Amino acid sequence: MEANELLGENAHIRGIQMENDEEPQIHITRLEVKTLAAAKQIGKLQGKYVTLEVPDLRKKDPDLQDRVANRFAKELTAFINVPEQAVVLVIGLGNWNVTPDAIGPLVVEDLFVTRHLFSLMPEVIDEGFRSVCALAPGVLGITGIETSEIVQAIVDRLHPDLVIAIDALAARSLDRVNSTIQISDSGIQPGAGVGNRRRALNRETLGVDVIAIGVPTVVDAATIASDAMDLLLQTLENKVPGNGAGRIFGQFAPQEKRALIAEVLQPLGNNLMVTPKEIDEFVDDIAHVVAMGLNVALHPGMSMEDARELTH
Amino acid sequence: MEANELLGENAHIRGIQMENDEEPQIHITRLEVKTLAAAKQIGKLQGKYVTLEVPDLRKKDPDLQDRVANRFAKELTAFINVPEQAVVLVIGLGNWNVTPDAIGPLVVEDLFVTRHLFSLMPEVIDEGFRSVCALAPGVLGITGIETSEIVQAIVDRLHPDLVIAIDALAARSLDRVNSTIQISDSGIQPGAGVGNRRRALNRETLGVDVIAIGVPTVVDAATIASDAMDLLLQTLENKVPGNGAGRIFGQFAPQEKRALIAEVLQPLGNNLMVTPKEIDEFVDDIAHVVAMGLNVALHPGMSMEDARELTH
Amino acid sequence: MEANELLGENAHIRGIQMENDEEPQIHITRLEVKTLAAAKQIGKLQGKYVTLEVPDLRKKDPDLQDRVANRFAKELTAFINVPEQAVVLVIGLGNWNVTPDAIGPLVVEDLFVTRHLFSLMPEVIDEGFRSVCALAPGVLGITGIETSEIVQAIVDRLHPDLVIAIDALAARSLDRVNSTIQISDSGIQPGAGVGNRRRALNRETLGVDVIAIGVPTVVDAATIASDAMDLLLQTLENKVPGNGAGRIFGQFAPQEKRALIAEVLQPLGNNLMVTPKEIDEFVDDIAHVVAMGLNVALHPGMSMEDARELTH
Amino acid sequence: MEANELLGENAHIRGIQMENDEEPQIHITRLEVKTLAAAKQIGKLQGKYVTLEVPDLRKKDPDLQDRVANRFAKELTAFINVPEQAVVLVIGLGNWNVTPDAIGPLVVEDLFVTRHLFSLMPEVIDEGFRSVCALAPGVLGITGIETSEIVQAIVDRLHPDLVIAIDALAARSLDRVNSTIQISDSGIQPGAGVGNRRRALNRETLGVDVIAIGVPTVVDAATIASDAMDLLLQTLENKVPGNGAGRIFGQFAPQEKRALIAEVLQPLGNNLMVTPKEIDEFVDDIAHVVAMGLNVALHPGMSMEDARELTH
Repeated sequence: MEANELLGENAHIRGIQMENDEEPQIHITRLEVKTLAAAKQIGKLQGKYVTLEVPDLRKKDPDLQDRVANRFAKELTAFINVPEQAVVLVIGLGNWNVTPDAIGPLVVEDLFVTRHLFSLMPEVIDEGFRSVCALAPGVLGITGIETSEIVQAIVDRLHPDLVIAIDALAARSLDRVNSTIQISDSGIQPGAGVGNRRRALNRETLGVDVIAIGVPTVVDAATIASDAMDLLLQTLENKVPGNGAGRIFGQFAPQEKRALIAEVLQPLGNNLMVTPKEIDEFVDDIAHVVAMGLNVALHPGMSMEDARELTH
Repeated sequence: MEANELLGENAHIRGIQMENDEEPQIHITRLEVKTLAAAKQIGKLQGKYVTLEVPDLRKKDPDLQDRVANRFAKELTAFINVPEQAVVLVIGLGNWNVTPDAIGPLVVEDLFVTRHLFSLMPEVIDEGFRSVCALAPGVLGITGIETSEIVQAIVDRLHPDLVIAIDALAARSLDRVNSTIQISDSGIQPGAGVGNRRRALNRETLGVDVIAIGVPTVVDAATIASDAMDLLLQTLENKVPGNGAGRIFGQFAPQEKRALIAEVLQPLGNNLMVTPKEIDEFVDDIAHVVAMGLNVALHPGMSMEDARELTH
Repeated sequence: MEANELLGENAHIRGIQMENDEEPQIHITRLEVKTLAAAKQIGKLQGKYVTLEVPDLRKKDPDLQDRVANRFAKELTAFINVPEQAVVLVIGLGNWNVTPDAIGPLVVEDLFVTRHLFSLMPEVIDEGFRSVCALAPGVLGITGIETSEIVQAIVDRLHPDLVIAIDALAARSLDRVNSTIQISDSGIQPGAGVGNRRRALNRETLGVDVIAIGVPTVVDAATIASDAMDLLLQTLENKVPGNGAGRIFGQFAPQEKRALIAEVLQPLGNNLMVTPKEIDEFVDDIAHVVAMGLNVALHPGMSMEDARELTH
Repeated sequence: MEANELLGENAHIRGIQMENDEEPQIHITRLEVKTLAAAKQIGKLQGKYVTLEVPDLRKKDPDLQDRVANRFAKELTAFINVPEQAVVLVIGLGNWNVTPDAIGPLVVEDLFVTRHLFSLMPEVIDEGFRSVCALAPGVLGITGIETSEIVQAIVDRLHPDLVIAIDALAARSLDRVNSTIQISDSGIQPGAGVGNRRRALNRETLGVDVIAIGVPTVVDAATIASDAMDLLLQTLENKVPGNGAGRIFGQFAPQEKRALIAEVLQPLGNNLMVTPKEIDEFVDDIAHVVAMGLNVALHPGMSMEDARELTH
């Protein structure tokens, strides 16, 4: 994901289409990877990617949260190509016990699920409400079952017309953390999240359209270490006169860098994450925004005001 | 459930077999309902029922907790009629956001799940460890999917040899709360828990043996009101001389009593529960005991000491 | 507290002044107990009592929450008789580990505290902001220190001009639970809350004006039992012809009733509370409303919109 | 703190006394800074410092936890120079809402406080139990009151004979995190913890002996970045032949390094912390160990078994 990082460089690659959109405090990037060749070139799967970047989302401004939910709902709606009577299954990936990995389960709890009402009390369902159900399947270490197996099992039984999967992501850069929402129709890639979930959820594996929603909530500690080294190297290169820099740093291979990073983090290994101190509040806030947006996008009959009331 | 309540009256009913067992601070009742006639007579399904009553379990004594886990493991083992290479699926029913309903999900988190290890890293699995997986499916109001549908979907895909379902119960009497663990092979009945889960999980519905483990954590407020009325009626009857009592109380029909109770609880309706103030600690403790017992019962190669280490 | 219950009967007692006010979905009662004689007669301390009753507060309607916060701020402002440059100490009573007792600590966390800013960074403080500080002292069983001693110690050192104490209450009736906010200038009475906090916080003990804010969040299980018995007795009396009722029920003394209630609740004793299942959400919501109202009432320069942004 | 880091270099400085002790899986360092000159030289205050290093503490082994609690109790006892009838006030510093900063408040909740029992029910107090009370005062951003002012106020009122302050620390190195417990009689230094608490708690400021207990639970993200740069510089120096290294890196001033680090972390600034994913469990476990140790050290009549039962 993290599509927009690629904008500058990739804007003119064949098979890539890209556009930016802007509203106050919200920057939207829409990227489409149209050909396999382009996909290989930029290291992403074929498909559509939308990224909302909202640095001020960390500032706890309810008006901005509303506007982001609204815009997110609109962008998401463009991904939802199923009729109103379709059944939508929302999957909240991640571990509800690990705060930065809890976005998915938190969104599930805030969803307006209706599938059971359609069968149990259809009279309470107004027009404009879709049949929505949801599951937070938990993580492999707790269930002993691959997440994709659980989702597949539910899909095989309920035959939803669309799966929407929400997951926390480990950002490649600090400025993404808790300020970015990503939508894609290319599925959720294995190991993309905070934990290690392995098999992809996408149309090929599940046999149904999958929309992935990703929210970066942490940065890997290795990223911090790597960034620090890169910045230092770059600073040093500027200092070394002539072609001295090439002499020194040309010898510095990627695997050497990885070894150094591993040495820095060695006592606690790969389980380290970098988060802001206010992580609990950030995660609550963004889960709320995503849930509001989902509720509005899934139920055409629901206004943002309804969503605000229903979404706790 | 609540088998032991029936002991006194039912000990001599045909088709009912019953025995008591005792160790310090722990009272065990084993009940078997052998015939359909007996089942109808006592209002329970055919099957085996074991109840551990441990009033001191509320006292936070780790030694007693260990002994209860141990005894529970032994009783449970008698229910587990599958070979060592069988796959066991543990279902933690209930809502992890409502403390007294969270027993099931809490136990799931404390289980030693191994199914993924058998395929991913079989070399770490010692002999004496079964393939165990687990799921906390959540409640209907959050998922929009009947719990039984989710379980059925997982069963259809994973083909476990045994399902064990753990649930919080609303006790019929205060002295059961947080001091009782119940095991049964007759499945989990609809609506038995704190919430309203509707379709039964049993061999008929799932096509696989189901062991139900129930832990009463609340009393319905209606039960308190009902008990208070019964006690008052009884006290009054003792006071009324001659056959006056019959005259008054004979007119008092069950539905009339239910109407009175509803009137008492009217402002907050059926969502009221009665819990001790220390409910969080109690629920944690009992979930821990159940998880330790399950770990030992499911993995013959695991000692209580291993279980204590592994069960957080 | 629970002033309004007394309205009907006491409206015409000498030394009692009372008025009702109404806005959509909110009923306000203002009671003043002016004389010692009146205080004795109705069993309340001399002072002013305002009660906001909002049955729909349980419905999670953000607009209503805003209006209640607003109205609560206005009523509270009438209690605050200190100049703008005064220092206000807010005390959040109760135990943050016991959900229905956590209102006080939750409000403290949502307050806009400024006292440290006045000394550390006075330049960020706009006009219209008071010096506000806050403490959640915890409960006797955890601290080993009487709450009143902690508060006294802080008051002796910081010399605030006003103390505002917030506490959860055990309601005398179910329809108060999670729908009522009470304000009083007569201090917080010992043992009024969910736990047992013993010495009063008031002008006599602390030497500074004390405004008490109380929110009923539970009903004692004994209240349910008692209500059930009362309703049954009343129903029976209506059934017994002639003066039979008097014969039976005249013999029924209060201590006898208390004994019956104790017998009903015996296995778990006095630690039982009756709460709705959604207690966590209710407590969060009302703490939020109280904190918003406090923020607006304490800082004349703060609008409800500011408060909404600042109050998480 | 982090005394042991200095061992190698400082063992032979005048005015420094140092010893190591060892038991399986536990390494103990005892350091005494005896003179002002020595204090200046090693950048620590005069006083005694004991550090328990237990890398395996991250492994959740209850037997090891018991042994660490036991050893910690013994080391702490050597710091407690008050008679048995003394009153001890325990202060749990930090913010209970920020997991890695919650050690102090968690320990307070697990303490066996007795001060109230001495006055309310002296008959339940056996010999060998000290009068212990405790407070978790919260952090400046929530209270608006300097922590030192709150503690001073309580000390002025209760006149304890000893204050013990527990705090989470930001470690200078990853291998300290969640595996180290530190004891000192030199007070708690300003800004030492996860948050910024400013004035020291020590004999000079409070007028009573202060024992500080510190547990590193996070590493600052800046530390990771700094470590990464140092390691890279060192690696590069080894690669540059002759005196080239000196030419390049001699120009590299500390403030330049700090500027680079700030640039790396810029999007989220100083509020970043590095924690292991299992931070919640680690913090619970260590708080439990510290509380057990405190309970045994403070109450000579309490055995480790009693402590285990009492310390939830």
